[in-house]
Amino acid sequence: MEEKKIPYKIYLNESEIPTKWYNMRADMKNKPAPLLNPGTLEPMTAEELAPVFCDELVKQELNDTDAYIDIPEEIQKFYKMYRPSPLIRAYFLEKALDTPAKIYYKFEGNNTSGSHKLNSAIAQAYYAKKQGLKGVTTETGAGQWGTALSMACSYFGIDCKVYMVKVSYEQKPFRREVMRTYGASVTPSPSNTTNVGKKILAEHPGTTGSLGCAISEAVEVATTTEGYRYVLGSVLNQVLLHQSVIGLETKTAMDKYGIKPDIIIGCAGGGSNLGGLISPFMGEKLRGEADYRIIAVEPASCPSFTRGKFAYDFCDTGMVCPLAKMYTLGSGFIPSANHAGGLRYHGMSSTLSQLYHDGLMEATSVEQTSVFDAAEQFARVEGILPAPESSHAIRVAIDEALKCKETGEEKTILFGLTGTGYFDMVAYEKYNDGVMTDYIPSDADLEKGFAGLPKVDL
Amino acid sequence: MEEKKIPYKIYLNESEIPTKWYNMRADMKNKPAPLLNPGTLEPMTAEELAPVFCDELVKQELNDTDAYIDIPEEIQKFYKMYRPSPLIRAYFLEKALDTPAKIYYKFEGNNTSGSHKLNSAIAQAYYAKKQGLKGVTTETGAGQWGTALSMACSYFGIDCKVYMVKVSYEQKPFRREVMRTYGASVTPSPSNTTNVGKKILAEHPGTTGSLGCAISEAVEVATTTEGYRYVLGSVLNQVLLHQSVIGLETKTAMDKYGIKPDIIIGCAGGGSNLGGLISPFMGEKLRGEADYRIIAVEPASCPSFTRGKFAYDFCDTGMVCPLAKMYTLGSGFIPSANHAGGLRYHGMSSTLSQLYHDGLMEATSVEQTSVFDAAEQFARVEGILPAPESSHAIRVAIDEALKCKETGEEKTILFGLTGTGYFDMVAYEKYNDGVMTDYIPSDADLEKGFAGLPKVDL
Repeated sequence: MEEKKIPYKIYLNESEIPTKWYNMRADMKNKPAPLLNPGTLEPMTAEELAPVFCDELVKQELNDTDAYIDIPEEIQKFYKMYRPSPLIRAYFLEKALDTPAKIYYKFEGNNTSGSHKLNSAIAQAYYAKKQGLKGVTTETGAGQWGTALSMACSYFGIDCKVYMVKVSYEQKPFRREVMRTYGASVTPSPSNTTNVGKKILAEHPGTTGSLGCAISEAVEVATTTEGYRYVLGSVLNQVLLHQSVIGLETKTAMDKYGIKPDIIIGCAGGGSNLGGLISPFMGEKLRGEADYRIIAVEPASCPSFTRGKFAYDFCDTGMVCPLAKMYTLGSGFIPSANHAGGLRYHGMSSTLSQLYHDGLMEATSVEQTSVFDAAEQFARVEGILPAPESSHAIRVAIDEALKCKETGEEKTILFGLTGTGYFDMVAYEKYNDGVMTDYIPSDADLEKGFAGLPKVDL
Repeated sequence: MEEKKIPYKIYLNESEIPTKWYNMRADMKNKPAPLLNPGTLEPMTAEELAPVFCDELVKQELNDTDAYIDIPEEIQKFYKMYRPSPLIRAYFLEKALDTPAKIYYKFEGNNTSGSHKLNSAIAQAYYAKKQGLKGVTTETGAGQWGTALSMACSYFGIDCKVYMVKVSYEQKPFRREVMRTYGASVTPSPSNTTNVGKKILAEHPGTTGSLGCAISEAVEVATTTEGYRYVLGSVLNQVLLHQSVIGLETKTAMDKYGIKPDIIIGCAGGGSNLGGLISPFMGEKLRGEADYRIIAVEPASCPSFTRGKFAYDFCDTGMVCPLAKMYTLGSGFIPSANHAGGLRYHGMSSTLSQLYHDGLMEATSVEQTSVFDAAEQFARVEGILPAPESSHAIRVAIDEALKCKETGEEKTILFGLTGTGYFDMVAYEKYNDGVMTDYIPSDADLEKGFAGLPKVDL
């Protein structure tokens, strides 16, 4: 295809927003391992999952055969509120780096949730409403998922109870107010409102919490309250499915201009953004139609892919959830209070874990201070203040672009800019004041986490 | 023209970003009154303005004859970083209100400054750089202008000193960090770093500051520091000129779809957003080519248009600036600490003041709590958390749409959504907690401000 002049921002038409989600699992030879019942060690059935998740979402969770799943019209309509999101050519960054690389990023931050999380939140709220539920419970780390879900629940008029990781609750007091503005209730986790929260507080007084703790609390409330279900913002197959809109839009935009990425980079906490961004590209790779270098970037302080074990583990700290096979640091691992709250999860999407295990993608970890170096550099030239989570991807994109500068290669680099950092100014303040620290867990720290892995031999 | 299907968001192509600014003054029969030298009461000359403003900006300030002024290429390039901004059809809001009105808003908040302020900041920083200056000083109220200017100065590599109204500095601690991330220095105003600041503090201990105070301090620093000039984010003719990109893009987008607004609404603090939005529409009105109902919305706590006097006054509290003829509450008027910091200015753009005086536009004032009612309603259905300033326009847009519901009229309403409220969560918290108060100055309060008006008989 003849190369067209690439604008700074490629916006698709609304008619080009996907009408079907793409389900990577359908094209995987080695399917992600099923969720297991921790009692029987048998794969969880739809019936067993029904008390936790909405019925339609259970179907999506278990469906590893249909490559495309229709997006309901109501969700398509909501997507038009903030989608299509722009694919941005980072001309300013390229110039600042003086690199021959061509850098693109898909920017998902231009909505009030501040991130890509809304893509799945609206789907999950829709199915909850359709099932006639009163409300949903959830956890939130950085607060982006909680905000997204509160927006979605407000739109459909259902209740939303959010358990927010305590360190984020304290670092981001204003996140709570956004959620309240959308009518949600927000509780710092671990809390005294649940049995599992009380237990964790007793065992780890003074803990700053973790996504794993918050999940346990939210699940407990959902399964013990009439008319409620639990929803999760990452990790699950269903979430990656919904997030495929990111990648599908990106691919459509790139195809329009005859662009083919050599390297695709995304930050990875539970894997929702990365899984969404890479979906159609990984699909081509799985079907042998194209090849891409795909890089997951995680914080050095919470290195599930790069230093974790590929094993069955609990998704939550309180061990109330099913077992999932994934790269994990152990559900008892409580990461340090670094500033990328959305990446502080001990495990990783089963789908991405399988792909990584099969050598279909790479992973790398980066340290916090170098991440904020990249964030500041990016903000100054591209004019978007990035979320700390997204800045992990920026760090590696810049590094790859600088490698191109050395070698003279004109590689095309695509990364996911998942969100904005407007609620992360405590972190930026530490960085601006020069008092930000890095933390890398020792092998002994990791061993403690691994020691808590369930003894499942499969 | 045949009516086309209107998408949720109308994005122009990058090639449709204006290449010339439109200067309303050229089409005004009654030109805005000139700035006066407070000593001689003669119109300020370019030479007299040169120690305060950049040379090219002085030319723009005084130019009331050229209808179009070329946008320099470097600025056009920067505009592509975040422009064109979307014109959004408020389908969700229309449905929620059950109104036959068609509501559109031009959304200027999708850049890190969080508002339209970047449109003028980049122009002013560019001319400062071109003149070989070391840096610029400015004031900021809500912090949006300061953020925009720090982004622009960082882009062109010049220094940026910001005096931030103390109440905003305290309400929005994180704004400071964004500015610092872009390399600016930020001082709460009034401060002890200037003579005028010391004087104001001595006379009004415990004052929460005002834009008028902060302007005085910034001007003092600019005029007493080698290689610096002062830049202002609103009020001035040059700023309205730069902000005409808002209206020009809006008009291009509307023309494309054959849309003609009946009512155009914008919030008004100093007038930059409103002046920019209405520019090309007012141009048609001035030339007798079309008619539009144009409404300025101001806070009831700072009602320059609706309760002020049309008179020569100082632009700043310290009375170090030239005199401008405008609707004013008196430069000594210090408005209550309401949450729309960007609208807490005692005066108003001379251009808009003249247009209002000549009956070419209307003005109305609204109270804070009703503004947040509108903000919350808007956020819940349109998915954008609006800035308190912008929410003044939303309030009146909703009221007009509800009038249409009563009368059955299908009016087309356009309003300016100048920015996002991510840094206004202290205000939203007060609103969510039900402890927000309204404040309307008494006639006696206003008389105190008027008593300080300079005795100029012209």
